[in-house]
Amino acid sequence: MAGKPDLTSGRVEMAHGGGGRAMARLIDELFRAELANEWLAGGDDAARFEPPGGPLVMATDSHVVSPLFFPGGDIGSLAVHGTVNDVAMGGARPLYLSAGFVLEEGFPLADLRRIVASMAAASSAAGVPVISGDTKVVEGGRADGVYINTTGVGAVHPGVAVGPARVRPGDRILVSGSLGDHGLAILSCREDVGFGTELRSDSAPLHGLVAAMAAAAPDLHCLRDPTRGGLAAALNEIADASGNGMVVRERDLPVREEVRAACEILGLDPLSSASEGRLVAFTPPEAADDLLAAMHEHPLGREAAAIGEVVADERGLVRMETTFGGSRLVEWLYGEQLPRIC
Amino acid sequence: MAGKPDLTSGRVEMAHGGGGRAMARLIDELFRAELANEWLAGGDDAARFEPPGGPLVMATDSHVVSPLFFPGGDIGSLAVHGTVNDVAMGGARPLYLSAGFVLEEGFPLADLRRIVASMAAASSAAGVPVISGDTKVVEGGRADGVYINTTGVGAVHPGVAVGPARVRPGDRILVSGSLGDHGLAILSCREDVGFGTELRSDSAPLHGLVAAMAAAAPDLHCLRDPTRGGLAAALNEIADASGNGMVVRERDLPVREEVRAACEILGLDPLSSASEGRLVAFTPPEAADDLLAAMHEHPLGREAAAIGEVVADERGLVRMETTFGGSRLVEWLYGEQLPRIC
Repeated sequence: MAGKPDLTSGRVEMAHGGGGRAMARLIDELFRAELANEWLAGGDDAARFEPPGGPLVMATDSHVVSPLFFPGGDIGSLAVHGTVNDVAMGGARPLYLSAGFVLEEGFPLADLRRIVASMAAASSAAGVPVISGDTKVVEGGRADGVYINTTGVGAVHPGVAVGPARVRPGDRILVSGSLGDHGLAILSCREDVGFGTELRSDSAPLHGLVAAMAAAAPDLHCLRDPTRGGLAAALNEIADASGNGMVVRERDLPVREEVRAACEILGLDPLSSASEGRLVAFTPPEAADDLLAAMHEHPLGREAAAIGEVVADERGLVRMETTFGGSRLVEWLYGEQLPRIC
Repeated sequence: MAGKPDLTSGRVEMAHGGGGRAMARLIDELFRAELANEWLAGGDDAARFEPPGGPLVMATDSHVVSPLFFPGGDIGSLAVHGTVNDVAMGGARPLYLSAGFVLEEGFPLADLRRIVASMAAASSAAGVPVISGDTKVVEGGRADGVYINTTGVGAVHPGVAVGPARVRPGDRILVSGSLGDHGLAILSCREDVGFGTELRSDSAPLHGLVAAMAAAAPDLHCLRDPTRGGLAAALNEIADASGNGMVVRERDLPVREEVRAACEILGLDPLSSASEGRLVAFTPPEAADDLLAAMHEHPLGREAAAIGEVVADERGLVRMETTFGGSRLVEWLYGEQLPRIC
């Protein structure tokens, strides 16, 4: 075998993605060591598991966030939370994750170790092991440090069936907490826009909250995490896919004062700023109170709020009743206010 | 919604990864249109499916091959075959794939469409749908056109349990066909080394061959596709993981004349050159004849050959009996002869 990779002052080499001894050793000393579990120990490309029975879901998410480390997280924890949440938004309990790394030649191995350790901590805290992995290396200038794809499988909560197609007029719209924190936290540490703030990313795994919600109100109609594009994109996408309109009340939208202030200075809309630890839920009106109560009892749902409802409107428009008594469209941006937020 | 993306002369924009209307429209017009299936039509981040019962496997593979188009395939078909094969090497029937794209700003949409169409054709031919996807965009100079992660889940063939831990002295080593074609085909069209050849990549989905093998000889001990690092890396990895030695016979190794000739000119070793449509199998000796006969009956196993056997050797050395009656170590390279082969 090759000598041990120098995880303190070494750098990613092309050989670390070459399928030879250098790659085998990096996998042993870094990925297998940090993410330690029986599947990775097996040394197979395919990891075997026994599903619990019932329907499963699968969700994938590639992560290219910049910078790689930010207040409240890093690309490693984000890659775990991002896919845990996508699986949870399928009304499911996440079971297993895979992780595919694209590394840039020359990237410090110490930074890679920090990222993988953070991923391991997030995976362990969420109780969702990374059972299969892959490592590729590209030449310097062909990536930006590290990109991570995570893919998850999960078991659908009994009796739960969520999706845009189930959304209908009268459904109440709930959010689990303050909106846009992640986007502004990332922005606050970008070299080109950096501003001082105490703001931290809300990046968090939402599957525990979803389990509590599914138990309290299994007839959930739809769940979505408002990531890229923020709440505005999430609502517009679901309005578009379900063929309904929506009305939300500005006064009920939970937005932190720091987020509101930073958005005003920068000319951004908090409703289009990404969250990575928040969800939007659509529920029949008769279950809304129980659902909100269950959310309030969960640490990640303490600030949950009912923010509006679905209305019949085949144009699929999303409107907001403003604090001042007016009404405006909640715009679905063409792109993102800022790229590479996740 | 945004206007239709111009799939003929348009280019990837940062907005195509922004979570807004531009991304939604690109997904609709390109990914959902080409990979058309009920899951993608649902518009959810998580795709729901009913597993068939019994154990499953999960495998992930990121693809960064350069160039993106090569004789016998492209990154789209390769991304399907790569993960279909990883799942199949777990002794399983692939059921579903996910696909995560990292796109470089400025990449021609017409090329992206060609790649996604090729992926769709490969997925359809293999009978393994892409049920979940993700699209990210990074700035020009932060990627190399397109990187694709695919992750697969599959159902383990009844009675099959494969893995390096099951390999033992006396096991016969079989390969399914000629070695190293993919690596040399990629090399033949690299700008810096290009040489004229009729050689095509062997990229192909091996799950049908594995199903035939599992039916003929379910007590298979181990399966591996000799991709990065070629047969030499595959044998050394399994020798290392299982704590056994191996002896292979040079005269029985199927290597095409063109591959042998090109390797000689370039100073490369065909045993370290990647295949993307070949497998290595380890089987108890009493099942070897039946297994080889079953392989010969499958279109992708016509040139299958028994190439050697596992021997007791706790140093885990892989030796080759040369055509001239000598013996040499089959070296496990430090890196890859050439980077970004898959």
